Amino acid sequence: MTKRILILHGPNLNLLGKREPHIYGLDSLETINEAIRIAAEEEEMEVEILQSNHEGELIDTLHRFSAWADALLINPGGYSHTSIALRDAIVAVGIPTIEIHLSNIHKREECRRHSLIAEVASGQISGFGKQSYILGIKAASWLLKERGASG
Amino acid sequence: MTKRILILHGPNLNLLGKREPHIYGLDSLETINEAIRIAAEEEEMEVEILQSNHEGELIDTLHRFSAWADALLINPGGYSHTSIALRDAIVAVGIPTIEIHLSNIHKREECRRHSLIAEVASGQISGFGKQSYILGIKAASWLLKERGASG
Amino acid sequence: MTKRILILHGPNLNLLGKREPHIYGLDSLETINEAIRIAAEEEEMEVEILQSNHEGELIDTLHRFSAWADALLINPGGYSHTSIALRDAIVAVGIPTIEIHLSNIHKREECRRHSLIAEVASGQISGFGKQSYILGIKAASWLLKERGASG
Amino acid sequence: MTKRILILHGPNLNLLGKREPHIYGLDSLETINEAIRIAAEEEEMEVEILQSNHEGELIDTLHRFSAWADALLINPGGYSHTSIALRDAIVAVGIPTIEIHLSNIHKREECRRHSLIAEVASGQISGFGKQSYILGIKAASWLLKERGASG
Amino acid sequence: MTKRILILHGPNLNLLGKREPHIYGLDSLETINEAIRIAAEEEEMEVEILQSNHEGELIDTLHRFSAWADALLINPGGYSHTSIALRDAIVAVGIPTIEIHLSNIHKREECRRHSLIAEVASGQISGFGKQSYILGIKAASWLLKERGASG
Amino acid sequence: MTKRILILHGPNLNLLGKREPHIYGLDSLETINEAIRIAAEEEEMEVEILQSNHEGELIDTLHRFSAWADALLINPGGYSHTSIALRDAIVAVGIPTIEIHLSNIHKREECRRHSLIAEVASGQISGFGKQSYILGIKAASWLLKERGASG
Amino acid sequence: MTKRILILHGPNLNLLGKREPHIYGLDSLETINEAIRIAAEEEEMEVEILQSNHEGELIDTLHRFSAWADALLINPGGYSHTSIALRDAIVAVGIPTIEIHLSNIHKREECRRHSLIAEVASGQISGFGKQSYILGIKAASWLLKERGASG
Amino acid sequence: MTKRILILHGPNLNLLGKREPHIYGLDSLETINEAIRIAAEEEEMEVEILQSNHEGELIDTLHRFSAWADALLINPGGYSHTSIALRDAIVAVGIPTIEIHLSNIHKREECRRHSLIAEVASGQISGFGKQSYILGIKAASWLLKERGASG
Amino acid sequence: MTKRILILHGPNLNLLGKREPHIYGLDSLETINEAIRIAAEEEEMEVEILQSNHEGELIDTLHRFSAWADALLINPGGYSHTSIALRDAIVAVGIPTIEIHLSNIHKREECRRHSLIAEVASGQISGFGKQSYILGIKAASWLLKERGASG
Amino acid sequence: MTKRILILHGPNLNLLGKREPHIYGLDSLETINEAIRIAAEEEEMEVEILQSNHEGELIDTLHRFSAWADALLINPGGYSHTSIALRDAIVAVGIPTIEIHLSNIHKREECRRHSLIAEVASGQISGFGKQSYILGIKAASWLLKERGASG
Amino acid sequence: MTKRILILHGPNLNLLGKREPHIYGLDSLETINEAIRIAAEEEEMEVEILQSNHEGELIDTLHRFSAWADALLINPGGYSHTSIALRDAIVAVGIPTIEIHLSNIHKREECRRHSLIAEVASGQISGFGKQSYILGIKAASWLLKERGASG
Amino acid sequence: MTKRILILHGPNLNLLGKREPHIYGLDSLETINEAIRIAAEEEEMEVEILQSNHEGELIDTLHRFSAWADALLINPGGYSHTSIALRDAIVAVGIPTIEIHLSNIHKREECRRHSLIAEVASGQISGFGKQSYILGIKAASWLLKERGASG
Repeated sequence: MTKRILILHGPNLNLLGKREPHIYGLDSLETINEAIRIAAEEEEMEVEILQSNHEGELIDTLHRFSAWADALLINPGGYSHTSIALRDAIVAVGIPTIEIHLSNIHKREECRRHSLIAEVASGQISGFGKQSYILGIKAASWLLKERGASG
Repeated sequence: MTKRILILHGPNLNLLGKREPHIYGLDSLETINEAIRIAAEEEEMEVEILQSNHEGELIDTLHRFSAWADALLINPGGYSHTSIALRDAIVAVGIPTIEIHLSNIHKREECRRHSLIAEVASGQISGFGKQSYILGIKAASWLLKERGASG
Repeated sequence: MTKRILILHGPNLNLLGKREPHIYGLDSLETINEAIRIAAEEEEMEVEILQSNHEGELIDTLHRFSAWADALLINPGGYSHTSIALRDAIVAVGIPTIEIHLSNIHKREECRRHSLIAEVASGQISGFGKQSYILGIKAASWLLKERGASG
Repeated sequence: MTKRILILHGPNLNLLGKREPHIYGLDSLETINEAIRIAAEEEEMEVEILQSNHEGELIDTLHRFSAWADALLINPGGYSHTSIALRDAIVAVGIPTIEIHLSNIHKREECRRHSLIAEVASGQISGFGKQSYILGIKAASWLLKERGASG
Repeated sequence: MTKRILILHGPNLNLLGKREPHIYGLDSLETINEAIRIAAEEEEMEVEILQSNHEGELIDTLHRFSAWADALLINPGGYSHTSIALRDAIVAVGIPTIEIHLSNIHKREECRRHSLIAEVASGQISGFGKQSYILGIKAASWLLKERGASG
Repeated sequence: MTKRILILHGPNLNLLGKREPHIYGLDSLETINEAIRIAAEEEEMEVEILQSNHEGELIDTLHRFSAWADALLINPGGYSHTSIALRDAIVAVGIPTIEIHLSNIHKREECRRHSLIAEVASGQISGFGKQSYILGIKAASWLLKERGASG
Repeated sequence: MTKRILILHGPNLNLLGKREPHIYGLDSLETINEAIRIAAEEEEMEVEILQSNHEGELIDTLHRFSAWADALLINPGGYSHTSIALRDAIVAVGIPTIEIHLSNIHKREECRRHSLIAEVASGQISGFGKQSYILGIKAASWLLKERGASG
Repeated sequence: MTKRILILHGPNLNLLGKREPHIYGLDSLETINEAIRIAAEEEEMEVEILQSNHEGELIDTLHRFSAWADALLINPGGYSHTSIALRDAIVAVGIPTIEIHLSNIHKREECRRHSLIAEVASGQISGFGKQSYILGIKAASWLLKERGASG
Repeated sequence: MTKRILILHGPNLNLLGKREPHIYGLDSLETINEAIRIAAEEEEMEVEILQSNHEGELIDTLHRFSAWADALLINPGGYSHTSIALRDAIVAVGIPTIEIHLSNIHKREECRRHSLIAEVASGQISGFGKQSYILGIKAASWLLKERGASG
Repeated sequence: MTKRILILHGPNLNLLGKREPHIYGLDSLETINEAIRIAAEEEEMEVEILQSNHEGELIDTLHRFSAWADALLINPGGYSHTSIALRDAIVAVGIPTIEIHLSNIHKREECRRHSLIAEVASGQISGFGKQSYILGIKAASWLLKERGASG
Repeated sequence: MTKRILILHGPNLNLLGKREPHIYGLDSLETINEAIRIAAEEEEMEVEILQSNHEGELIDTLHRFSAWADALLINPGGYSHTSIALRDAIVAVGIPTIEIHLSNIHKREECRRHSLIAEVASGQISGFGKQSYILGIKAASWLLKERGASG
Repeated sequence: MTKRILILHGPNLNLLGKREPHIYGLDSLETINEAIRIAAEEEEMEVEILQSNHEGELIDTLHRFSAWADALLINPGGYSHTSIALRDAIVAVGIPTIEIHLSNIHKREECRRHSLIAEVASGQISGFGKQSYILGIKAASWLLKERGASG
């Protein structure tokens, strides 16, 4: 059965390509989304992609898609480190979650080292730019197959 | 004179009944709201109940009801521990405030131990599930009577 | 069946009414105990009330009443923040426990913010003066009914 | 050439004049905005002024004005201390930024001492009430002239 | 009018003269008490002296003498650093209090550096052995005269 | 010459067998004391065993037996982590001391990791249930023989 | 009436123009002082300017001018973060004080983030190079007018 | 040109399949290595795989392969959190490095949260069991292509 | 059935008798091993004893003996406080483990207080010199008998 | 033989009587010095009194009087908490030293709680205003007599 | 060309030979200076040597010699750990700087472990008594030659 | 008599010249060893030089040479900050030890600031590249002569 995956881009990711390209790369969000759609298709997954700068909207969206989605790929941006509410939302909907970061957050400012989201996610992929998302799609596909197999 | 109380439910409380029932119980938010309305009636209080996943909307709502409400009952959810802005709003409107938690936050994860809201509230009730709200209504009623008496 | 509740007042609570009335109110401990007895009667609970300034005596008392009591309401006063022995006693006797504070400990000195007792209690009620106990009686009554119902 | 400056007021600043006047003064936000407009005119700058209680809306607004604005004057209120997302937005748009505070945040509660925004701003002005904004307009004007001169 | 002073010796002080004489000196507690009585007589003060190893008994005693005593001289020993209950008792009875230490606690183990009692006392005298008490009697006499003068 | 050993059981140990058997085992305190007496006899030591929930009583007892006892075996329970007064008493009486714990305190809650008593004891045995005491008797016997040999 | 303002430059500011121009700019202290004198004249204030590398001399100077000065503008340099004595002096003389920094100390080394002086100043201006002083003169002028008006 | 990748398995990974399968899965190291070889072949990369329990041997191996390898995939196991020497070796050889973890280290014990290796790696993949390595091979292949393209 | 026990001596223990005898005693490692062999024989246990200064070799050895050994007695020396890899190995092989220290590590330097190994061991014996091992043999014998009995 | 005592007043003490009288009292430094001279005479001690706002001058003075003085009474003011150099000077000259504070530093700001000087002094007297010095003179007299007696 | 080196001795070094000889040795400052002059001559360097107990004077001196000196050898004594102003001065003058300590500061009190000066120096030599300076002269000579060679 | 000195190079030092030359310089380890041999000859010392990336091998080597060597010169590289085992080995063999660092570790990453080895060494020389070793040879020669003289 086709699996469904929700992609949530957090704050400031709408600026991609324009924002600090030495850290985040030159691809725009639309280019990345295109690559995500292709990767999802390869894995025979349906995909929904949304971006918001609002913590509350990310939570609302996650609630709204909680019945539809089999997995969540989330790049929580700055909210990774400050949002217990978003973390609670992920636990509440109970969908397998993969945390994605374009840059390697582990080598940046102190305040960006600790992710509240990673503590409730299945795994984390950090530091491979656009490719972090593609690897995340593959990881999600594998996670769901494995769960299906053991189900 | 009839007193008026504003009930604010913070992020993810709309999922109640579905979300981690071993922690938050089996009642839906609507069931809880019904119980709140009955308890308010018993105390002869008017009640307004709102829920939002948006920090900003919680603040907006509090501002909007600042003239109407005699007391505030708030379950700030994940924002309890991260929102100085919400805390500032409570201080700014100057309404007696009671912080409510379904679960006993004092025995959960480290990041959930310290409430920024409790530091500016009149009191805190934590750990009695739905009943936390009912106890909060009673506490608010008593607080307002006492203020009236000494006024 | 009638439920039985033990009320333990910790150190310095014998001075109530005389001690810092701007923080702890004007009621004497006897006045508060009277109100507790009335509230217990309303909830059809038997009640035993004791006060001690001795950490060891609080523990002894708790041990002595461990077979009698169905629930414990405790205001551990200054021992809330320093007594691992009292905390161990509560865990050892295994009775549902509600922590009570007259003042809102969350807005006081740093050393009064963290309660070792709350970490092993069912819930905590803090900041409503005498009324904290009355709310606690109701909370205990409800806790025991709920346990009975699911038993 | 006329320079353009964006003024962002963060959460609870819509309550000015009503909220804790001993800390924030008696002027309403509209009075302050009027003073800002006059000061901007004196410095021959165009000005846009917005207020929001929503972290996400502050970020959205900043994105929307990123091409228009030559400088940003921001009073992030409670978000100063908690919003990595807002901080990221400021870095992303790359506009010279001045952080403004009505009160001297350095002499207030511990949690208000450290500003995440100041770490990415050109400078900070704190403690002069309404006048903080006027000084900020002057500072921005000077920053932009100096940049023009060295361009 | 003759002033009355209560002297409380905390845990292990009954062992004085036998216990670690290189730190606490060679005088027995009785010798020290004799010197205290002489010093009190010189200052024309009535004196009551008690020692206990029980935190609760020190609190009980303080309560019992709260109406009698004009001042308190206390060497809380190991309870200086751990007893919020004793500190609360001192605040509750509201008697001017002087903290006494035989040894200079500021140059000993880390856990002995911070006194919870000193934070609620009028002053502290530390490091002069038996003489710490004599100096404390004089300090108390002066404190009470000054209060009398300004009363 | 026959050696004499004092056994002190701290708070809540009177509940043994009833209290959290998955942590503390199924043996009652009396069963353990019987085993201690047998082990002491094997090592040809006289033994005195006492239990108290009172910090002050543990200190009093230690003082009272200070001339009698050649060694001390103490399970300070919750006081291990909070009692500087008890620690001071051990140093004051100057008897070789062995700290005993039924459970392995090093793998439990953070607040139970650091023992103030261990810092002034000869050694510590932790994690072997009833057997911790038996091993402690043997360790004490050996310590005293060694001291005798080198004396 | 003409107001009088004291300007204190702390350690190493005599090297301005020579010292790390990428941080502190190219202007010498004399150029900056000239700009300060012009700004003071515009605000119709009398001005005294002194620089010292000695903590004690800065304190002496502040004492000496305490009767003369209506306000203090101080750039405490490295002493901002280490001098409780200078902070005490500012509190002792009781003159409205504005703290000035050429660079934005909030984005520099950890040890330069926390100012002991800011905690006792009216406000702080940081990050605008020479212009920080000019803005400070204006802020001081406004502070004194406001105080006069309300006096 | 064919790229070459070195795979280093750190301490205890030789036990895979036998060790805590609820955390690390059921595959043996040989099974995982087989999957790695297939993935590498798909990406047309040469692969060398080594495991050691010795910090020094991991460093020696890295040195020995520093000229041969175009990229490093390393699962440093327990050394992730304690080995500055291994971290120095990675920086010294200057090869693009990807850190791999079978389990999600961000949700485990506190001491396993911070990786010294991640701070000098290109990226980190954590939490996908055997698949973490396969994703790592793909990430390495992409990193090297991108570098080639920009070269 | 005869039980088998592995004894691992960590770094620098080969120097025993020569190294700091005031801390570690005068017995050489061979003398201690002889005593261990006698004690094991008394308990009817087979024993293997190894010493290494190499963290990796200790891990290798533990792996190699994981099928043979019924219990592990380990004195991890300096690795107690720094080796997550050794700790992981102990968890991985799943053998009941007793941590041994010659000296009382709880009264030594700060960096020697916390043992990463104790957190995964059954128990810890610390401070009895050579005798610590003998007590450990007895503790292991008892642990295995108890497990056998309940099996 | 007549003993000689050096009195050092640290920074801002020259302002006494004018500076924050609610904390430091109404007496000027000259009044206090007069009282010191009388007290010294009573104890038959010669006295030298100096005040400086300069850390270096306090050190110079201490060096200069190191041969003359039998004891040192020092109120290091703000330098108590920041001056390792002054602390080193006290250790270097090796004279018995008593630290004096007018206010009870233990109940003031966090940064005023820890004294670097107290760690190298014989004792500390804190919180008795002018009387702190008089008590200090008596303490010094006693210290010197005791040393003489045992010499 | 002859190189010129400035030697700055910080607080209390004028007492050398008299002050704690077990830590700082028996040589007087003059003896050490003589050895420094001989070593400088051997390296064909001109030398200026100054000592001060005043932080401000050390800074003034450094400023005064900033054009003359090719290198700085500084023993900042107690100011090593507290003086950001002195550290700023070293950065400001931009002369290669070597920090010297007679004793090994890394094995002394906690407060003496971290040097603010070392963070801006070329290197640090600590623990060799008088010889630390001689080694420093050689190090400086070599640093300057190397810089000359690469110039 | 000719003195003998052991030189131990820690992890990654075999890569010298190739590894980060902007930090560690261009000289290979062999070049440095040649310089060390010449310096040792000048000081009429015999020298043994070894390098290892293995913590255990460094310890083994130190044990092996403990009777031969009169002094130890060690650059522990990354093990400086993590190896209690190596530190124990140095204390155990009891040879005067000098810690050497090519770069100034005091101005590098936080995790490289604190050396466990320095706390047990005679002294430390840090920041002078190859020359650090040469200075270390001279320091060792002087240390041994001084000990000989006082012997």
